[in-house]
Amino acid sequence: MKKTDVLGERKIIEIIQDQLDLMPRMPVPFGDDVSAYDLGNGKLAVLKTDMLVGKTDVPKGMSLWQAARKAVVMNVSDFAAKGVKPLVLLVSLGLPAGFSKKDIEAIGDGLNAGAREYGAYIIGGDTGETSDLTVSISLFGVAKKGQLVLRMGAEPGDFVAVTGLFGKSSSGLRVMLDKANAPEDISEVLVESVLMPCARLQEGLALSKSGAVTAAIDSSDGLAWCLHEIRRVSNVGFLIERLPVAKEVKSFVRINDLDTAELVLYGGEEYELVVTVKPRLWFKAKEAVRKVGGKLTLIGKVTSKKEVLLRIGGKECVIESRGYEHFR
Amino acid sequence: MKKTDVLGERKIIEIIQDQLDLMPRMPVPFGDDVSAYDLGNGKLAVLKTDMLVGKTDVPKGMSLWQAARKAVVMNVSDFAAKGVKPLVLLVSLGLPAGFSKKDIEAIGDGLNAGAREYGAYIIGGDTGETSDLTVSISLFGVAKKGQLVLRMGAEPGDFVAVTGLFGKSSSGLRVMLDKANAPEDISEVLVESVLMPCARLQEGLALSKSGAVTAAIDSSDGLAWCLHEIRRVSNVGFLIERLPVAKEVKSFVRINDLDTAELVLYGGEEYELVVTVKPRLWFKAKEAVRKVGGKLTLIGKVTSKKEVLLRIGGKECVIESRGYEHFR
Repeated sequence: MKKTDVLGERKIIEIIQDQLDLMPRMPVPFGDDVSAYDLGNGKLAVLKTDMLVGKTDVPKGMSLWQAARKAVVMNVSDFAAKGVKPLVLLVSLGLPAGFSKKDIEAIGDGLNAGAREYGAYIIGGDTGETSDLTVSISLFGVAKKGQLVLRMGAEPGDFVAVTGLFGKSSSGLRVMLDKANAPEDISEVLVESVLMPCARLQEGLALSKSGAVTAAIDSSDGLAWCLHEIRRVSNVGFLIERLPVAKEVKSFVRINDLDTAELVLYGGEEYELVVTVKPRLWFKAKEAVRKVGGKLTLIGKVTSKKEVLLRIGGKECVIESRGYEHFR
Repeated sequence: MKKTDVLGERKIIEIIQDQLDLMPRMPVPFGDDVSAYDLGNGKLAVLKTDMLVGKTDVPKGMSLWQAARKAVVMNVSDFAAKGVKPLVLLVSLGLPAGFSKKDIEAIGDGLNAGAREYGAYIIGGDTGETSDLTVSISLFGVAKKGQLVLRMGAEPGDFVAVTGLFGKSSSGLRVMLDKANAPEDISEVLVESVLMPCARLQEGLALSKSGAVTAAIDSSDGLAWCLHEIRRVSNVGFLIERLPVAKEVKSFVRINDLDTAELVLYGGEEYELVVTVKPRLWFKAKEAVRKVGGKLTLIGKVTSKKEVLLRIGGKECVIESRGYEHFR
């Protein structure tokens, strides 16, 4: 019989879902970035839980403060993708024996920092003894019905855009773990992107308000994976005509003789938003993001072909359906 | 510097709380059975997270299905104490490598069974790889403001009552783990109480509706601990005049030469409700519980003395402030 390491995270979630009774009239389908419950009066309670585990999500060199903050950011990023403001959060904290008061203070302070950065408060939680550090966050917020942007909804002809450039965190991990080479100013930026990730909350809220977005997802499982997720649930395809490469990654790739597309498309642990936008509202969306201090970058368009293609300099290739996955 | 095993669960929670910015106008104070957010219009969003960890919360002999169901019941019991109906829940599931498809199906099915038993649905979650099985549940519900019963609010003169009898689960654990002796019919009941705990949701909802309850808590950390918690936050004392001993426990204690009070007061892992009731509404409260098929048992009264005393057969002794605690 197949075990967790062969099954992989996504198959495991599928097996669990198959056991569950489906709530009638779910406002958000299983597997989207968040879950929701209809409060009536045109409002949704929006909920999200995501777990950070020491051995898989906390690279060597990341402090406990940073790990705790990251656990919050991971969750906020999913709310950002859906255009929902996080209001309060709970923390379920599994601690290994032997953590000191100072360690626990660092965790508490990191959790609080992550929450306050995005205007939310921690209002409760639980703790227990585990072998690895385990920080499971539950976020709560309220959304107007119809303003929550799903993964489903992209239409052929829509533009595809991203809120930032990619490849920094997978390059940063190579600097931290594999001692890859980079000049100090570049390696600092790359490592910082791993240690201090940010959620694009203001961008996500502005995009949702603009009414220009037809589908959205947070990119933490990798750009390629996100595109395939929207493809799968929206039943469309993509033609990507520009790889959104961070400038530090360009230098890093040259120095270390790496493949840019690999770092940008399949890296993961990057908390950008990937959105599809109605073409006639493109400038409205771009302006909405600019107004909150962000930048929306056009990378291609939605097609009806059910495949995800990359076409650059006349060459075309298939973007594979793979990305970061636990248990692999 | 002190480590987790010296600090203990409650001190750890205190250290974390000290790091947090307090949300203004919190409807429910830190440390109560649930947390809440004011939705306006007289309504509260009620949230709870509680984590089940394999090595501390799943005794040998408990199946994965039972462990998953228990993780849900633990959380529902806290909602029950506050008189709030759980609507939906999320699951953050940490799985050790090497779990099979069948294992994961058992977990999914157990989670669903726990949720459906209490009318709730699982609407989302997350999974990751951990060394121990870790099931972190987040519950969501909506309560009318003023109907949520806090730990704070007990007044001298109030009656103290419980929704069931105690000592079964600590006796059951002794049967399962220490091979303590008991006739088959008794040991079956004791072990069942460990493997298939139930939350007193109907009782809790009825009590909250009755308007008779001044304070309430779920007894999962042990009866003694609960009384001391209400004492601490309500600034009162207790005189307990009847130990609510389950009849199977009476036989079990005799056969194994054990201390009844120890099992009943300090056992933990028992999901009864401990409530304080306005004396003039005692019969209303009792009748409300009877109508939903339960039984409210009077065990003593609230005093102004700030201590928790047990007086039985003319003898008086102090009930200590101890109970089940992780990291100990």
